[in-house]
This record gives sequence, structure tokens and C-alpha cells, in this order.
Amino acid sequence: MAKSEPTPRERMVFSAAQLIRREGVTATGVRDVVAHARAPRGSVQHYFPDGKQQLVAEAVEWAGHYAGGRIPRVLAGMAAPTPGKLFAAMVRQWIEEYRRDGFAAGCPLAATTVDWVEGNPAIRPSLARALAAWRDPVVAALVELGVPRRKATGVATLMISTLEGAIVLARVEQDLEPLYAAVRELGPHLDTYVAVRE
Amino acid sequence: MAKSEPTPRERMVFSAAQLIRREGVTATGVRDVVAHARAPRGSVQHYFPDGKQQLVAEAVEWAGHYAGGRIPRVLAGMAAPTPGKLFAAMVRQWIEEYRRDGFAAGCPLAATTVDWVEGNPAIRPSLARALAAWRDPVVAALVELGVPRRKATGVATLMISTLEGAIVLARVEQDLEPLYAAVRELGPHLDTYVAVRE
Repeated sequence: MAKSEPTPRERMVFSAAQLIRREGVTATGVRDVVAHARAPRGSVQHYFPDGKQQLVAEAVEWAGHYAGGRIPRVLAGMAAPTPGKLFAAMVRQWIEEYRRDGFAAGCPLAATTVDWVEGNPAIRPSLARALAAWRDPVVAALVELGVPRRKATGVATLMISTLEGAIVLARVEQDLEPLYAAVRELGPHLDTYVAVRE
Repeated sequence: MAKSEPTPRERMVFSAAQLIRREGVTATGVRDVVAHARAPRGSVQHYFPDGKQQLVAEAVEWAGHYAGGRIPRVLAGMAAPTPGKLFAAMVRQWIEEYRRDGFAAGCPLAATTVDWVEGNPAIRPSLARALAAWRDPVVAALVELGVPRRKATGVATLMISTLEGAIVLARVEQDLEPLYAAVRELGPHLDTYVAVRE
């Protein structure tokens, strides 16, 4: 099936996520999104009647589904997957981006949380859905890899917390080491959760 | 020695950090800081000739030194300190704040990074100094507790990354569980770095 061109609406959600990743939510204006997406002027009112609030909400949820959607594909591409290798692959995507593009952009979930979770509580359901859309496939993958079900949610939360923080520290230092440290120091521990299977 | 009253200058740096923690850097105005600190109107130009840039830089460095300054005190107050217990104490401060005040505020280092590290690169040296002021005492504490020196920086980086991310996730979910998961799932692993001493 041929991959269809993204619609102007899809381009705007993607552009919002990209701008939020770089400058935060507060600094990202609706006009910047329209320009970045090369969308027609009236398209915000047309596609996002609630304006910036709706655009940010959809951008953060899109990002959560994007991150979560990668998990089963990453797992399927591994010869001998383990929790530590899954975590390394999650971190590696950021290492590759930072090697390629520099440290320009962080995670839109963290960016939106920092700027808006307190001052704009209407965003909270979208933040929570974005996190769930990312974490649920990690939990499912961990269970598939042999992590006991009662442990899997906490371990997935730890993995995502560590990655989120390492992204911030890498940008602070303009250096990949916090991401490498996460893989090196946390990865082997994650493999200890795998129950010995008969 | 009697603890002296904070000066207007100190109050403004503290107020800047508190406002950044809640709303991010972009949304924090110099006027808001003056009002929060109950400082005289002309005091920004007087104390911070470079304006918001200088105020944010000092706020984030103050926060790094505050976090780092707690580490030796926390360690000194423990009967049988271990790396895992040190990490638990670092996380516990956030759990206690969130229990007391709700999830209103995050870490000013993360907030400033997300909003400014790309668009305002002049802030980077202050971000890096803030992180160093926090991490260096953690590294020293880990070495004191028996973590091999060659491992200590990476482990301290992991601890701070995980805490930073767990703060974000706790605010997303308006729930303490990401902080509890960090302590429960990472803490015991941290203790495995302690070399057996003769």
C-alpha cells in the first residue's frame, strides 16, 4: 500500500510537536505552527476550533502514540530481545537523533508538562493518555520478555523516567554521556527481572 | 550564629526559581518575580543588570547548589547509609513536597532546559554548573559509600536522570507512583555497586 501524503491537519500536529520539542509550549505560537507546517492561514480555526489548547493536546498524544507504536516493531526486529536491549533501543533513537541533529529538541511530553501541567490543568488528560500510549506497549513487551506481570508497570515507569531525565541532562551538557550512562548502568539491572522460565 | 533574613536580591533569585518550577521559564516574567519576592520596583535593574537572563541563570545555579548542598547533610543524618538509601532520601524530598503542596512545581533545571537550552544558548553554562553543583556531591557520597570511583559519575548521573524523569511523570499522572517506582526498582540495584571492603 502506498504511503499517502500527510494531510495539512496531520502536518500541523507534527509541526506543533516539533516546535514544542525545541522551545517549549509557551514559546510555541499557533502562527509558528502554521508556518512550519506550510498550512493555509485559516486552517487552525478549521481543524482546531479550540486553538492552541487543542493543537498541543493532539501533538502530545500523537507523540505518545508514536513512541508506543515503535515498541513492538523494535522488539520484532531483535534476534534475542531482553528488557535491557529494549531499553537500549529506546535510548538509541535519541542518541542517533542527537548525533545527527545536535541537541536541539527534547521530549514533547516533558516540555508540555513543565510549561502547562500546573497553569493549564485542562491539558492533563492528554498528558496522561500520551504517557499511557507510550508505557502500555513497554509493559506488554516486558511481560512478553518474562518480567513478572506485577513488576512490569513499575519497571516500564522506571525505564521511561530514566530516559526522560537522561534527555534533559544530555541537553544540559550538550553531550551524549547521560544517555550512555542510562544504558550502561540501568540496562543490565533490567535483565535481572526476567524470571527463569522452565 | 543567627540565620540572617534573606536580602531582596536573595529573595528575587528564590522567587525566580519557584515561579520557573511552576510555569516554566518562558511564562515567568520579571514583574512576576518582583511581585513574588515583594521586592522594590527598581531592584531588577539594580541587582540584575542583564535582566531576566541573569535572574534565570542565578535561579538555576542556586537550585543546583541547594540540591547539592543537601547531599552531605542527608548522608550525615543516616545511621547506615547506602547508595540506595541516599537515592531514596533524594526522592523522598519530592514525595514530601508533593504530599504537602500537590504537584504544582517541578525541577527548575529541567524547566529551564526545556524552554531555553536551544533558543537561548547563553544559558547553557549556568545549566551545566547547576547540574555539576548537584551531581558532584552525589559522586563524592557514592565514593564514600564504597562505589568504585570509575563508576561513581555514571551512577550519579543515572540517579539524577531517574529522579528528573520521575518528577515529570508524577506531575503528568498527578500521582506519587513514578517516584515510588524509582525508589523501589532502582534503589536495590544502586547498592550492588558497593565493592566488598576488607
